[in-house]
Amino acid sequence: MEIKLYDDYLEKFNKLKSQNFSLDMSRGKPSAEQLNLSSDLLTILQNDDCIIEENNQTIDCRNYGGLDGILPMKKMFANLFGVSSEEVLVGGNSSLTLMYDSLVLYGLSESAFPKSQLKILCPSPGYDRHFLMSEYLGLTMIPINMTQDGPDISQIKEYIADPAVIGIWCVPVFSNPQGITYSDKIIDQLAALKPATANFKILWDNAYIIHSFDGEPPKTLNLLRTAEKYGNYDIPIMFTSFSKITFPGAGVSAMAASEKNLAKMRQNISFKTVGPDKINQLRHVKFFEQTDIFQHMKKHGEILAAKFNVVLQTLTENFADNPNWANWIVPKGGYFVSVDVPAGCAKRTVELCKQVGLMLTPAGATFPYGNDPLDQNIRLAPSFPSVDELKIAMEVFCTAVKVAALERVIKK
Amino acid sequence: MEIKLYDDYLEKFNKLKSQNFSLDMSRGKPSAEQLNLSSDLLTILQNDDCIIEENNQTIDCRNYGGLDGILPMKKMFANLFGVSSEEVLVGGNSSLTLMYDSLVLYGLSESAFPKSQLKILCPSPGYDRHFLMSEYLGLTMIPINMTQDGPDISQIKEYIADPAVIGIWCVPVFSNPQGITYSDKIIDQLAALKPATANFKILWDNAYIIHSFDGEPPKTLNLLRTAEKYGNYDIPIMFTSFSKITFPGAGVSAMAASEKNLAKMRQNISFKTVGPDKINQLRHVKFFEQTDIFQHMKKHGEILAAKFNVVLQTLTENFADNPNWANWIVPKGGYFVSVDVPAGCAKRTVELCKQVGLMLTPAGATFPYGNDPLDQNIRLAPSFPSVDELKIAMEVFCTAVKVAALERVIKK
Repeated sequence: MEIKLYDDYLEKFNKLKSQNFSLDMSRGKPSAEQLNLSSDLLTILQNDDCIIEENNQTIDCRNYGGLDGILPMKKMFANLFGVSSEEVLVGGNSSLTLMYDSLVLYGLSESAFPKSQLKILCPSPGYDRHFLMSEYLGLTMIPINMTQDGPDISQIKEYIADPAVIGIWCVPVFSNPQGITYSDKIIDQLAALKPATANFKILWDNAYIIHSFDGEPPKTLNLLRTAEKYGNYDIPIMFTSFSKITFPGAGVSAMAASEKNLAKMRQNISFKTVGPDKINQLRHVKFFEQTDIFQHMKKHGEILAAKFNVVLQTLTENFADNPNWANWIVPKGGYFVSVDVPAGCAKRTVELCKQVGLMLTPAGATFPYGNDPLDQNIRLAPSFPSVDELKIAMEVFCTAVKVAALERVIKK
Repeated sequence: MEIKLYDDYLEKFNKLKSQNFSLDMSRGKPSAEQLNLSSDLLTILQNDDCIIEENNQTIDCRNYGGLDGILPMKKMFANLFGVSSEEVLVGGNSSLTLMYDSLVLYGLSESAFPKSQLKILCPSPGYDRHFLMSEYLGLTMIPINMTQDGPDISQIKEYIADPAVIGIWCVPVFSNPQGITYSDKIIDQLAALKPATANFKILWDNAYIIHSFDGEPPKTLNLLRTAEKYGNYDIPIMFTSFSKITFPGAGVSAMAASEKNLAKMRQNISFKTVGPDKINQLRHVKFFEQTDIFQHMKKHGEILAAKFNVVLQTLTENFADNPNWANWIVPKGGYFVSVDVPAGCAKRTVELCKQVGLMLTPAGATFPYGNDPLDQNIRLAPSFPSVDELKIAMEVFCTAVKVAALERVIKK
């Protein structure tokens, strides 16, 4: 029976292979259609618009100055984060840079331990760039299990008794790759943690803060406010950016944290820049004065939902009756669908897809050191391809999963 | 005689003090008139322009990717630096960030010595931000004398025999603050240095690379090419930016170095950003396709020259007959006039100017640790004020110099 099935799927696989298909769906890139939503941003600003008034001071946004951002940009981010504008620092085009600088500044520079002994907690599966950055900085990564509600708090509590554990990575809303939004209970428990080291930080990468498919921003407990209530005001460092709201690579990033933490970052930044691009900040402020940001996100969401639906429908058609072959969470926002295939089959599935011309995120990338202990998690990134391309891609993917799964059974 | 003179100048000083003058000329900020030269940059790019072809690949500059810049931007910088585009890495809006990252990456991370023992050579007077950054990173700064042709090579040769000396800061063209352009002989000697440590770097901050008042770019020996000839290809790291060509804070920065050095920086950057703002690069490329960059710089130069002339004329009128009171170099470009007042009088002069409402760069800022050993150097930054404001400011300055100088004589 299984051999017959295997032969059938293999035949289908070989047929797909002969089609000369070629598609890269390895990264969470917005599509051109999404980028077109922000076209007006390019030409929205005229010369005269660059002179603004801020606290009774005239600021020429074309000139030097303004180390941590212009006030109207801070206010926009403050609204998104649910904090005061005094708790916001505006960065350049990349929130990843703010994360790197935070990890170095609050973590590595402040610890009593030598760098080689420091550790960081990594809810997994998670965002590969967090893991690559941690490894590059010489931190030992400790995987933390993810539940449907967020990371496993009991595991976290156990590890933070070690003073060499200096932080935890979190993607609290529409997590990368699972699309999980942390429950308020989990956020409350994270806010209340009592880590052994005083310089422990929660690196709260809220990359998908308002990125729901229906345009309704997810309502979650505010980590910074809750931590403050528990006497942990200096623990959270929250990040977000406009990369997946306007233009990736030409957006604006920001962080929110206690004023003490921000003062330290401002000082650090003052030694390496005369300030971020204020003109691009002003472009974003003006654009979102004219366009409601939630309406804008709803348009993104509609484009994305059509693509996610192809992925989810195909998965359902192929595997709803056979949960041993594939499991996934249905996301309500974000950029990814995370699929667990049978243990030991993730690498082989990705390899088979590659043979057909479909590039997926490397298996294991969603775990520290690229090491998925069960070799079962695969991240699908449906945002960039067209709906038609996705239909073929998903046929390829589902066939590859079946071939990989049956190979293992037959080989046994 | 001196007491009579002192009384006269003090009277004049007090009269100026009563005028309610207020002007900040502490930093080298371009004026609004200069910024207006680049107005078209704001709206030059339409949505369709963002898709470019590069090495047979289609690149959507609005999307992720392009870690070290788009090719046409690299080519522009390659032309400015006089290197190949493979030797260029394009950064964000701030060359200071590239310098900081370079100092950490090539200097601190690679040295066999503990950070606390590392030293850096600082031709002085020099750029205060280089010194502040070095101090923040824990480096011990060693001042090197400046001559009319560049830094004192014999001093440099002496210090680089120490393997803890990991680099030297240089502003080779229209140096900050003296406006000195290094002679080819000095550049050749720098290129041929034989430092004791293999990771020694020449940090070549070419901030004013084409910033001559007459629009003619200074012709100087190419450091990278010359160093390569001497087997020192990995020693120079060259920097520049568009900050004082288009918009400070919204320009584009770049570095040029050996491919080995660039590979290392690319790797480093890959952990902390998905790439710099390609849209802003494209704006600059398109703007300078339509506008000859040297004509553009000539317009900057004309605006600046009118202001520098006020400074230089007033200095000549006041001090040409009395070189004991003030000495200066007449710059042909750049952003500063460096004035040496009598030893022990710089701090007092700046303080007197402040009493009248004129903010100058703090005395000492042009030396490591803010410590001008002779307390004689003052940096004047004429670019931002209007010509009329500068006329008053220079009257204030010259009177303050005289009062400060005579105070000392009388107190003796």
